Amino acid sequence: MNREPNNPIRLGMVGGGADAFIGAVHRTAARLDGRFTLVAGALSSTPEKALRSAEAIGLSRAYGSWQEMLDQERQLPEDERIEAVSIVTPNHVHYEVALAFVQAGFHVITDKPMVTSLTEADSLVAAVEDAGVVFGVTYNYTGYPMVRQAREMVRRGELGEVRKVIAEYHQGWLASDIEAEGVKQAEWRTDPKRSGVAGAMGDIGSHAENLISTVTGLGLAEVAADLTTFVPGRALDDDASVLLRFEGGARGALLVSQVEVGEENGLSLRIYGTQGGLVWRQEQPNRLEFKSNDAPLKVFTRGGPGLHEAAVDAARIPPGHPEGFHEAFANVYAGVADAIRTGRGDHPTVHDGRRGVAFIETVVASSRSAAKWTPFPTALT
Amino acid sequence: MNREPNNPIRLGMVGGGADAFIGAVHRTAARLDGRFTLVAGALSSTPEKALRSAEAIGLSRAYGSWQEMLDQERQLPEDERIEAVSIVTPNHVHYEVALAFVQAGFHVITDKPMVTSLTEADSLVAAVEDAGVVFGVTYNYTGYPMVRQAREMVRRGELGEVRKVIAEYHQGWLASDIEAEGVKQAEWRTDPKRSGVAGAMGDIGSHAENLISTVTGLGLAEVAADLTTFVPGRALDDDASVLLRFEGGARGALLVSQVEVGEENGLSLRIYGTQGGLVWRQEQPNRLEFKSNDAPLKVFTRGGPGLHEAAVDAARIPPGHPEGFHEAFANVYAGVADAIRTGRGDHPTVHDGRRGVAFIETVVASSRSAAKWTPFPTALT
Amino acid sequence: MNREPNNPIRLGMVGGGADAFIGAVHRTAARLDGRFTLVAGALSSTPEKALRSAEAIGLSRAYGSWQEMLDQERQLPEDERIEAVSIVTPNHVHYEVALAFVQAGFHVITDKPMVTSLTEADSLVAAVEDAGVVFGVTYNYTGYPMVRQAREMVRRGELGEVRKVIAEYHQGWLASDIEAEGVKQAEWRTDPKRSGVAGAMGDIGSHAENLISTVTGLGLAEVAADLTTFVPGRALDDDASVLLRFEGGARGALLVSQVEVGEENGLSLRIYGTQGGLVWRQEQPNRLEFKSNDAPLKVFTRGGPGLHEAAVDAARIPPGHPEGFHEAFANVYAGVADAIRTGRGDHPTVHDGRRGVAFIETVVASSRSAAKWTPFPTALT
Amino acid sequence: MNREPNNPIRLGMVGGGADAFIGAVHRTAARLDGRFTLVAGALSSTPEKALRSAEAIGLSRAYGSWQEMLDQERQLPEDERIEAVSIVTPNHVHYEVALAFVQAGFHVITDKPMVTSLTEADSLVAAVEDAGVVFGVTYNYTGYPMVRQAREMVRRGELGEVRKVIAEYHQGWLASDIEAEGVKQAEWRTDPKRSGVAGAMGDIGSHAENLISTVTGLGLAEVAADLTTFVPGRALDDDASVLLRFEGGARGALLVSQVEVGEENGLSLRIYGTQGGLVWRQEQPNRLEFKSNDAPLKVFTRGGPGLHEAAVDAARIPPGHPEGFHEAFANVYAGVADAIRTGRGDHPTVHDGRRGVAFIETVVASSRSAAKWTPFPTALT
Repeated sequence: MNREPNNPIRLGMVGGGADAFIGAVHRTAARLDGRFTLVAGALSSTPEKALRSAEAIGLSRAYGSWQEMLDQERQLPEDERIEAVSIVTPNHVHYEVALAFVQAGFHVITDKPMVTSLTEADSLVAAVEDAGVVFGVTYNYTGYPMVRQAREMVRRGELGEVRKVIAEYHQGWLASDIEAEGVKQAEWRTDPKRSGVAGAMGDIGSHAENLISTVTGLGLAEVAADLTTFVPGRALDDDASVLLRFEGGARGALLVSQVEVGEENGLSLRIYGTQGGLVWRQEQPNRLEFKSNDAPLKVFTRGGPGLHEAAVDAARIPPGHPEGFHEAFANVYAGVADAIRTGRGDHPTVHDGRRGVAFIETVVASSRSAAKWTPFPTALT
Repeated sequence: MNREPNNPIRLGMVGGGADAFIGAVHRTAARLDGRFTLVAGALSSTPEKALRSAEAIGLSRAYGSWQEMLDQERQLPEDERIEAVSIVTPNHVHYEVALAFVQAGFHVITDKPMVTSLTEADSLVAAVEDAGVVFGVTYNYTGYPMVRQAREMVRRGELGEVRKVIAEYHQGWLASDIEAEGVKQAEWRTDPKRSGVAGAMGDIGSHAENLISTVTGLGLAEVAADLTTFVPGRALDDDASVLLRFEGGARGALLVSQVEVGEENGLSLRIYGTQGGLVWRQEQPNRLEFKSNDAPLKVFTRGGPGLHEAAVDAARIPPGHPEGFHEAFANVYAGVADAIRTGRGDHPTVHDGRRGVAFIETVVASSRSAAKWTPFPTALT
Repeated sequence: MNREPNNPIRLGMVGGGADAFIGAVHRTAARLDGRFTLVAGALSSTPEKALRSAEAIGLSRAYGSWQEMLDQERQLPEDERIEAVSIVTPNHVHYEVALAFVQAGFHVITDKPMVTSLTEADSLVAAVEDAGVVFGVTYNYTGYPMVRQAREMVRRGELGEVRKVIAEYHQGWLASDIEAEGVKQAEWRTDPKRSGVAGAMGDIGSHAENLISTVTGLGLAEVAADLTTFVPGRALDDDASVLLRFEGGARGALLVSQVEVGEENGLSLRIYGTQGGLVWRQEQPNRLEFKSNDAPLKVFTRGGPGLHEAAVDAARIPPGHPEGFHEAFANVYAGVADAIRTGRGDHPTVHDGRRGVAFIETVVASSRSAAKWTPFPTALT
Repeated sequence: MNREPNNPIRLGMVGGGADAFIGAVHRTAARLDGRFTLVAGALSSTPEKALRSAEAIGLSRAYGSWQEMLDQERQLPEDERIEAVSIVTPNHVHYEVALAFVQAGFHVITDKPMVTSLTEADSLVAAVEDAGVVFGVTYNYTGYPMVRQAREMVRRGELGEVRKVIAEYHQGWLASDIEAEGVKQAEWRTDPKRSGVAGAMGDIGSHAENLISTVTGLGLAEVAADLTTFVPGRALDDDASVLLRFEGGARGALLVSQVEVGEENGLSLRIYGTQGGLVWRQEQPNRLEFKSNDAPLKVFTRGGPGLHEAAVDAARIPPGHPEGFHEAFANVYAGVADAIRTGRGDHPTVHDGRRGVAFIETVVASSRSAAKWTPFPTALT
């Protein structure tokens, strides 16, 4: 992959102003490989703050609202106006903005969960197919090179037939009522109006779902979920455990929490087939363990020997020189850039986004049900 | 704890002959601290093999059957006959032997699961209470010093109120049909006649249950279980995932498998309270992690600074000199020895054994149920 | 630290063309926080290749040689011409280029080792002091947040008086004669004309020296070195072990190799004082262990609780979201940017560069000496 | 290996009374596999304490001194008297006791360092050869199964030609003057009269030497040592770093300390050859890493797949069931038992003991020398 091409993609951004952690991450990811150049933005929901945020980061074309950005950019000459837009807002805003830009023919990158209902998701899928634009969802964790190595190993049958999948995502930062103390990151995530029907499950469980689907390729058949709210007064789940059954007979479990004190960002995936098993942990992302009953444990390392091409391509520097979160995030951006420039790219699509929304809805329904198993909508698997 | 007293307890053994892995473990555990001296045994279910096994290990009083041992030992002078008996047979034999020795006034140590039905368990509890003997169950993993440290920390409130419990037990050795290839350890474990109603859940899930109960002290309220048999032709579960709800509102998950290829003996426990979290992994048993949102991760080590007395007492050698499986097992034996000699000992009792049997029955019932939640018998929590 | 200011520094680059791993790293580091914008470059030693490399990355002002870049840039208007230059060439070129740009009043960033003799180093120090420019050396490993945390902990006396320092740098990629197979990275590093008097010691030992000096602040008193060349036909050392004695009585050891097969980039530092010890390992850079005899091991994490301000400032994203090599490298660039814009920045200076060159010379002299101890030039400690 | 034979070896013990940590370890090791039965002892240097200690552990034949034990045991019938004696005293006593028992035809096990001078060592070697008895030295760390795996891998050339050896042994418990506070373990270790010419080097450096020699089989050519005493008033070294040169051109380093606060028992060995590297760490003794430039890291586990017979034989229980210090120690005892019963056993011999003493003397001489390199006595390599 040529990481420093001479024609970067002109990017606009919606949301991601001054205080937003994830805005800076998106900009860093876009900038890291020189594949994008950020030229325009409506960085906040209030015009004044949007313009102030744009000024602070030296953004050339600052807009007071996304509608304004859309209107004005489309009137610029083709070789000046933005080619793509990143949507980096609370969840409830994604749909409207994404739809408008897609329909106007811009490529779109949006944060996850893509939208807040399956209805919206279906509508967006249709719009993307109509418009023929590139649509990426920043399920950034599947951008890690060793996740791509895992995906390739499963695809090639190196694990045999997959029997068991365990995905986990452990955090502790929401263990107390910090949304009442003015922590903005906590405020919108715990507010059903801005987050949607799920809390922890939507915020981080959705990443785990994408990790499972991307790596195993298995279709989900049914789930048995227990969503819990531990912090008094909170409206959405902050902890969840889910039993999973996949089409074809594989079984699994998904453990998610944002109230496990001391846990930082403990996303992990374990997959066991008839012939081999894989273990990957996000907090040590440059390693991938391969286990079997017949040979010593093998540890693949990013950039090291024995990797498939998709994993080799996703690394920038030699083994032992740690890459991390930013590079994985940049790999999603790079995949979108490839798709825009060449028609092919390795990145989560609008279909991944739609399946993620269906997953959240199904898990929430299961948690409310007295029946053990709630089926996953079959059209999506 | 005086580990090398001058009056070791005279021990008999039922089962544990030549080929039995666990028989040698029990003998090593009994011998390790010099608290027991093995003087008699009926080491196999067939007289000839029993005598041959006894000869091989230089056992002085060898019997052809447990009934013979019981009859003859009770006729020996009080200062010669065995004081306690270890039952180290497949599960289906435990009840009959244990009951007979208890009723004859001998102290009993038995492997887990204690018996194969709650009815048997109730009967045994009553017999033990009548006889006033010491009864230990070798839930050996709760014998680890750092597990005792965890138990003390929870009891003293160092985690705050417990919210979340995750127990796991991962093995891979039953990933293929090795019971058909003459592997004895696999044969009886996968045979309902000898193992009881559960496979992996009874064999290793029961250890995980005891770990949860011992460390957290929480009563179980209800479970949602999914037991699976992956290896074609096998009669019992070889994989299980269970959602747990505890009295008082804590939540949990239990993940168990014997078909996760490459996994060796991956028992672990994670507990999160309002103030702190604990992580313990059996494969690195000399460490215990304490996590919180307010301070750096603390790692307690066996024999190291900052431990409670129960953990200090359970260690034999300084930190950095690894103790392992045998020493933890010996701690259960030492607890029973303490109880016999002093009336007080730190070891799993007949009540732990009974709760373990109830757990297995409840999980099996839940797995067969279409209802999400199956209640745990309240009298046992 | 404002990481996305609205007035990025205009940067030129010397060296770092198409095939050069380290050129892309420098550009990524410069770009990552938006603190620099690369506007000019003489990316190779041959004009044609220099221009082709510039074209490939879309560089606006491409020059055929560094002399040409120097001549033409100084004639541009002040608000257009480059403000700083990065020198990313083999070692033997650093001195001439750095001196010329310094004397012309440009700020300079150069790779390490800064120059190839102490004489050159002294001359460069004088020139920098005369010109009053900012001069940074990319000892990138001291840019890691947890290294800065270690430095602060030592400075504040949290370890007591330092007694023992162990630095290691283990690689394996030069275990065979790959310079004969056309591997460019190996070619110049093993060529005395381009690398200077030392091989592994200059290439990676110099990083370890900077890590020791930066974190402990100790002055080196004398060394006993054993430099070895394992690969037949190689002219420079590919392995080295050195005993260290510091002023004030602390002792240490430095272990360096590029022929330890399978080792990737195993830089580490351990420091023990009278009250506490620190362990940091580059391959897991987001952790820092603090040890003592009186309390359980503490593990600090980047972004986590309990850090000093210098470590907090050096992190971009929350704990558990791994940062790595690029971010540490970018922290050196950010420190230089701070120094340029505000007069104060946290980065290795020309004095660090000079001490590093003296270290290499002293170690090489010691290795050739029959005397056990070779003194370190006292003026430099 | 039959670990529970029917004819245990009758053992006597010299030293190892009530307060002695290492006495209990030896007894546990002797007892663990049922290969020895402790029947006699002179457990302390004062008769009264010796008898009290014997009473406390229920020892049948208690003697007030080792001379008394020697006299009286040799008068017992052959099938009653001890067959072997364990010497578990401070170092300065080893020689006299060992020589007397050897000359009387008893097999001997002694702690390390074997004796306190090379002259004594030579004399003991001669006596052992004359008497034809089995003589074991409890370099217990080479009893670990994964150390034996490492030894076999080197012997079979799986690493290619060995180039580099790094041995380390880090402890922190002597970081302050605890010998002045009545800590018995510290008192004799820091007393030249009882310990010999070296402190940390003799106590733990000797283990590291044995680990290097046993695993690599390399002869030592010359050393450059820096022994330091950090704690004021202490007479012997408490910290040491040594450069190593082996016959044939391999290089190495040995790092030893007992003042690195917070370190527990950090013995490790790294070996790199032309084709592969091995890493073993005592605090995680059930793992052995194999590294190469051509394939992912392989992690061998005790009891797991891919091991050589010597490693398989040295394990008692399946992989994932941790064995530790006691079992490794018991493997030395088991090797001596094999040698006594069958004429062949895997254990450190009087020659290992002699080489260890020579190593200590050479390192001490080097530390006092102004010459960089001090040769190792060639007859011993």
